[in-house]
Parts: sequence; structure tokens; C-alpha cells
Amino acid sequence: MEKKSLDTMEKNAIIVGAGLVGSLWAVYLSKAGYKVTIYERRRDIRKAEISAGKSINLALSERGWKALKKVGVEKEIEEIAIPMTGRIMHDVEGNETYQPYGKEGQAIFSVSRAGINAKMMDIAETAGNAQIHYNKKCIDVDLEAGIVYLEDAVTGERTSDKADVIFGADGAFSAVRYNGMQKLDRFNYSQNYIADGYRELLLPANEDGSYKLDKNALHIWPRGRFMLIALANEDGSFTCTLFMPFEGENSFEKLTSDEAVINFFKTTFPDFYEMHPDLIGSWQSHPLSSLAIIRCYPWTSGKVALMGDAAHATVPFYGQGMNAGFEDCTVMGDLMEKHNENWTEIFEAYQNLRKPDGDAVQDLSVHNYYVMRDYVADPKFLLQKKIEKRFSELYPDVWIPLYSQVSFTSIRYSEALAAGKKQDNIMKEVMDRPDIEEMWDSKEVEESILAALQ
Amino acid sequence: MEKKSLDTMEKNAIIVGAGLVGSLWAVYLSKAGYKVTIYERRRDIRKAEISAGKSINLALSERGWKALKKVGVEKEIEEIAIPMTGRIMHDVEGNETYQPYGKEGQAIFSVSRAGINAKMMDIAETAGNAQIHYNKKCIDVDLEAGIVYLEDAVTGERTSDKADVIFGADGAFSAVRYNGMQKLDRFNYSQNYIADGYRELLLPANEDGSYKLDKNALHIWPRGRFMLIALANEDGSFTCTLFMPFEGENSFEKLTSDEAVINFFKTTFPDFYEMHPDLIGSWQSHPLSSLAIIRCYPWTSGKVALMGDAAHATVPFYGQGMNAGFEDCTVMGDLMEKHNENWTEIFEAYQNLRKPDGDAVQDLSVHNYYVMRDYVADPKFLLQKKIEKRFSELYPDVWIPLYSQVSFTSIRYSEALAAGKKQDNIMKEVMDRPDIEEMWDSKEVEESILAALQ
Repeated sequence: MEKKSLDTMEKNAIIVGAGLVGSLWAVYLSKAGYKVTIYERRRDIRKAEISAGKSINLALSERGWKALKKVGVEKEIEEIAIPMTGRIMHDVEGNETYQPYGKEGQAIFSVSRAGINAKMMDIAETAGNAQIHYNKKCIDVDLEAGIVYLEDAVTGERTSDKADVIFGADGAFSAVRYNGMQKLDRFNYSQNYIADGYRELLLPANEDGSYKLDKNALHIWPRGRFMLIALANEDGSFTCTLFMPFEGENSFEKLTSDEAVINFFKTTFPDFYEMHPDLIGSWQSHPLSSLAIIRCYPWTSGKVALMGDAAHATVPFYGQGMNAGFEDCTVMGDLMEKHNENWTEIFEAYQNLRKPDGDAVQDLSVHNYYVMRDYVADPKFLLQKKIEKRFSELYPDVWIPLYSQVSFTSIRYSEALAAGKKQDNIMKEVMDRPDIEEMWDSKEVEESILAALQ
Repeated sequence: MEKKSLDTMEKNAIIVGAGLVGSLWAVYLSKAGYKVTIYERRRDIRKAEISAGKSINLALSERGWKALKKVGVEKEIEEIAIPMTGRIMHDVEGNETYQPYGKEGQAIFSVSRAGINAKMMDIAETAGNAQIHYNKKCIDVDLEAGIVYLEDAVTGERTSDKADVIFGADGAFSAVRYNGMQKLDRFNYSQNYIADGYRELLLPANEDGSYKLDKNALHIWPRGRFMLIALANEDGSFTCTLFMPFEGENSFEKLTSDEAVINFFKTTFPDFYEMHPDLIGSWQSHPLSSLAIIRCYPWTSGKVALMGDAAHATVPFYGQGMNAGFEDCTVMGDLMEKHNENWTEIFEAYQNLRKPDGDAVQDLSVHNYYVMRDYVADPKFLLQKKIEKRFSELYPDVWIPLYSQVSFTSIRYSEALAAGKKQDNIMKEVMDRPDIEEMWDSKEVEESILAALQ
């Protein structure tokens, strides 16, 4: 057992998990006067080699920036973030199509997971005054008493620690959730794996260090039931990811020999194949991984709350996992002020308010997989988005495209999802006009949308 | 480690769980030539006092009987089963309405959980030649090697056992699923608690041993958002269960004092209140319990398969939990013959065939809660069921009412569910006729149903 200061004026908080959300939340708590202790299962990743393999690049957008700015730590992240102003789609013939994400000047930002995680740990220690203990596996939680039980991964030593309030920011396979919440009667839980897995491929920089593709776009090779994507890294390389079913016609189970892999890339992604100096080496150095949606409820009990992936892990297709987790900090921070640090009230309000948004960001993420792997290859879909963009520029008060609501505003995910469904119904009628390709930028189409909005 | 016979001709099977399904499945395996060992977490319930509290009575129906008959063990269960030919609804004024479940001579059968479980254990030992080891908690499973790891609840001793094939028939909170399947990558799992809980009340026999209510019916006090039910026991008593939300207007959280309980029963179930000699004593002697739907997939991996509640635990409102579990034995038994004991093939076929039926019986169970607590108090619903019954008697080849498909046939649950939805759509139109109350048994109505079926 560790000994604690008896200073009764000191407010203590424990965060389990020194990942992105745990690190940021430490800063919020510290600024509110809490002494923050973080327990992290892994060793200090800043001292280890950068881990590769399961690191799809992250896309930082408005909600994430807002949460960072609130506690003044956005500058350090800006240094490692590469703006992406739109998507570039690559077809089988090597043709490229560009689709802007939002208005002039709007972008989402590519960051490597390892890079931002190291930065966030620095921030937790400096701006957050947090003490991070590594190799500490959470093996039990007393929700009511506010105690975490830990086991050192190196020495095997068992300790415990107690705090006024505890946060499980320990990811999709949260030990706080598993050892604490999961034991509650009436705890709702689901883990649903999608039929598709992913495999990472690093596309290195040119020999002179330059990029092989436009670094200011997210690259997609949409192929209907599967897709390849690429996001730029700072060093000139691209982190590329192939998403594809585990089983079936075009699937990972078919790509078991080097020959099959080469043949698949040659015929399916010829421009990418030509560009890559060592496809097989890159293919072999990363494992095949799975993707799940994890839902649960309640998110809080006693002195403990779940945040980020521990509460609402999602698939990566909207680039919103990290942003949603960071927004949990904004939401919890606002409630902390509003309820004057009455944690019973804060936790109740947090889960009531935030659960529908956790569900919504998951639904949105699944839907955006269809968009990325399939719809963006359809000229009709791109035309629809062009019409929406035009209309939204003319009537910004009544129409913000769904992608923009999610990526460039802080409109609640649940409201964005509902608005997106409504927009989709309206646009279905508009796109059904036989003359839509000629009339798309006409006053008539404009007015039909306005009328439908009434 | 236990030592095993070296007789290579011997086929061994392990079943985890000496509950209803595990006990019955032992008989099937034994008849197929397997030496069966059962490991049960609890002590021998036949030597303990009959456990009370969380034992809603069970309703044995066609699927259950069929599975028992297949291996010739139905006789012993018949002795403890009380036929219920229909429902009797009790309104607030004390009026009773009778609704038959099926045709003349059709019934479902009330059995006490403790009673049938003890009988089934006898059957496992006699007809199944199974050796049952008690107080053996399954703490790990090697799915590929076919090994279960056990801990003795009394001595703490750890042992393991290996078999050609292993079955997890260990209930909703299955240790085989938790320690084995749950660790698989891409294992889908969900546990969803409904908003309602239940509390058991034993209604004792009259002093002369006679029943206080008709024993050959399932009694329901439907009250919209909640309900009380009663099923007869052999000794003249009734096992009664109050199903109600945990929170809200009429809820368990409101019934925290004896006074509140008395007042609630007096005003809501006056006839039941009058009948009960010791309501508070009965109320206090049983805990409040929760109800969950548990889904997972896959159901099999390596040498291990889940059966019964371990695979598809459901809420009790269709009285199909035990029947579905027993039907798993029929299905697995048929596949064992068909695939000539090739367990890889059997397991693959079992989960492909049976998972949609597990999902369907869960959906049916949730739906029947609305029927029992609400619809059966609606004269219009009862009229609809009367029309369906009449039509079904006239045209038995084209219309079997949903309740009958589920309770009196072995039509796949998934097919029954689909047929039920179709019937419901047809009957919605029929019931919308303004003159339906006068015309319900007319040729015209009959023909409109026939037309809709085309």
C-alpha cells in the first residue's frame, strides 16, 4: 500500500491509462487544483522504439483542437500535425479525383499515433503536473471506495491507491471497465467486431526525403467492398492501411502468399504498387488486426468514470475516435465547473448527456466506411456533395453538410447524426431529378431544397 | 491432474454445468457411446435445501418434450409437470378472463426449477451414466486442446481434465464462454439488461393443501407497464413473480417499506392481496433480481461448444429458455448423426443453423413481455387472437398462430418470428375494420385473410 499525504485540503485524482485522453484529462484536473496520478499498463513509450503495426494515423479535427485549446496545450500538437484539406481518390486506371472536406481554409490534421501520444505524455507531466507510473496493470477497482488495485508488470508487486475520484481512460479493452463496471449488476455491454480487418503498410519517403503523394490530402483507393488509404507523416512517409473483409472473395484469407499479395496490388492498386519500393517487406512487418464497436452503460459508478475508448470505442472510419475522447474532456470539464466539483452530480450529468453522443459517433463511423470505400468512387455521390456544399455556402444557417458538422463544429454527434439523416432524405429526392447533372447549380434545385427544409 | 484411462477406443466428453441442458445433453452423448464427465460449480442441489428466491417456474412445451422423448426420459418429468391449458387474466376489479393457449388438448407445463433440475441430474446419472463432480469451478479452458481447468470451491485444489469434446452448458454467466470464447479475437458479445427486474412471492396452499387458484392455468395480473404472474407447484402452492421497472412511477424503488408494498398490492392486485396470508413475509424472503438478454458469436471454437443459456440467455416471458436449450440438444444430436461424429463439421453446422434461432427466441421473449403485461388486458387483442384461432382451425395448413408455432411445434424460432410478423401485418388490417366486433367470425373476414395471404 502506498502512503498518502494527510493534508485534507489536497484533492486527489487517479487516471488509469496514459494514452491520449488520460493525458489530456490530467491537464484539466490539474488546472482545477487536483493532484493527478496516472497508472499506465505499458512502459514509457517515449523511451521505447516507436511501436509500429497497429497504428492507423489519426485525424485531429475541430473537437480535438477545441479540447486542447481549452487548457492551452494546442501549440505543441500543431507542430506535428499535417493539414489535409480534402480527399484524393485513386481509381484503378490511376486517375485522381479531389474532394474538399469543407470550406476554403478548413482541414483535418494527420498525426501519427506514437507521435501524439508521446507529446501528450509530455503535456500531462508539464502542464498537468501528473505523476505517471509505468508498468502498472489495473487488476481490480473498488468503485465505491475509490481504490485501484495494481500489479507491477516487471516486479509483480501488488499495490493499491485511493483517490477522491478515478477515471478509466484505458482504451477499448479498459481494465477499469472490465474489473470494475463489468461486475455491476445491470451493466450493459457489447463488443461487435465488423467483418473487416486491417493491415498497415508504410510507404517510405523518396530518397531525397520528399513525399510520394500530396501530403495535404487523405488518399483513398476506394474499391467497393474494401479500400486502401494513406495519411502523411512528418518524415515524408505515408502510413497506409488496407481495410478488407477477413473472409470471402476479396479478403485477407486470400492473401496468404507473397505472390497473391503482389498480384492483388498490381491489379487492384496499380499506381500504389508502382510507387512502393518494398511492398512485401512492408506487408510482412505488420500484423492483420480486427476492428470493433464497444458500447456499455453506465459509464460511471461511485467514484469512477470511463472516458474515451473505454466508454465508446469505435471503428476508425470517421477519424473521430480521438476527437470524441478529447471532447469527453471538454464535456466533463464544463460539468466540473457547472456542478462545482460535486462528482456525484457531474458523473450523472456526464453519462446522461454524453452516452447518446457516444452511440452516435459509433453509428457515424460505421456509415463513413461505406462512404470511403464505395460512395466516393461514385460521380453521383460527389455531385450530391457538391450540391450540398454550394447550398450550404448560400444558406449557411440552415445547412451544414454532415461531414462538416462532425469535423468542423462541436454540434453534438447525436444532433449531427439526426440532421444528416434528414439531409440525406432531402438529397435523395433532389438526386432523383433526371436533369440533375445539368441543373445541379440552378435556382430551381436551390429552391426545392429550401422548400423541403420547411 | 487427473489420470485418464488409456483405452484409446473410449470416447470422452466433458460437460461444464449440471443444469437442465447439461444433464439432458449427457444422455444424448452417453447414448452415442461417450463417457461423460460433468463439472458443476455448485454443490449437489439434491442434498441441499431447495433453493428459493430466483426461481421463476419454468414452462415446458413441445420443443422441450421432443428433446426429452428423443432419448426416452420424458416419463420422469411428466410426473412433476402440471398442464396449463391457457392464461387467466385478473383485472383490478377481480374479474377473470380466460384465453386458451392452443387447441383442445394442447397445454404448456409448469415445473419448478429446483424440482426439474434435481430430476434431470438423476437422469444424467442413470440414463446418461455421467459422473457429476460438484464444487468444481471452471477457471480456464484450452479451446484447441480440449482441456478444462478447474478449482475446487471447498479445498481450493486445482485440477484439469481433457476430452475429445467439451460442452459449456453453464448458463447465462458461463465460465466456459468467459474464460474461453471471450478471449478469442473477433468474439462478438453483448449483455443487455431490460429496465425491469423481478421479485418472487410464494403463494402457499390452503390449509387443506388445495390450490388457491386454478392450477391448470398461468395466471396474469396485467397492469400495462408491469405485471404479476403465478404458476402452480405440485404441493398446492403457486410461485408468483412480480415483474416491474427498477425505477420510475410504478417501480421497485418505490416499494421500500412494508407499508408501501401493502398499499401497492391492495390497490393494484386486490384479489391477490386478499388471497395471500403473509404478503410481507413472502416479499421479504426473496431478493430483487435483474433480467438480461445475452448474445454472442461464435458458439463453438476448437473442441468446445456452448449450449443453452451459455449461448443465448433470454428473458423468461415466452417460457422458452429451457425449451430452447433442450432443443439445442435435439439439433446437436441430429447433427452428430448426420456428420458421423466429425465434431469440426458438427460444430460449424450447429452454430450456423442455430444462431438465427437463438436470436429469434430472444426477440420473441422480449415481445411477449408486452403481450403479457399489456396486450392481454385489451379486449381487442383477445378478439384478434380469437379470429386467428378460428381461422387457423379452418385453414390449419396456412395459418398457425405465432404462440402455437413457438409452443406447440418445432418450427424454427427464426421462421416462427418471420411468420408472426407477417401474420401481425395481416391482422392489423383486419382489426382496422370498424365492424370487426360483429363480423369477426364472418366468411368475409375469413376471405380477406385468405386474400392477404396470397
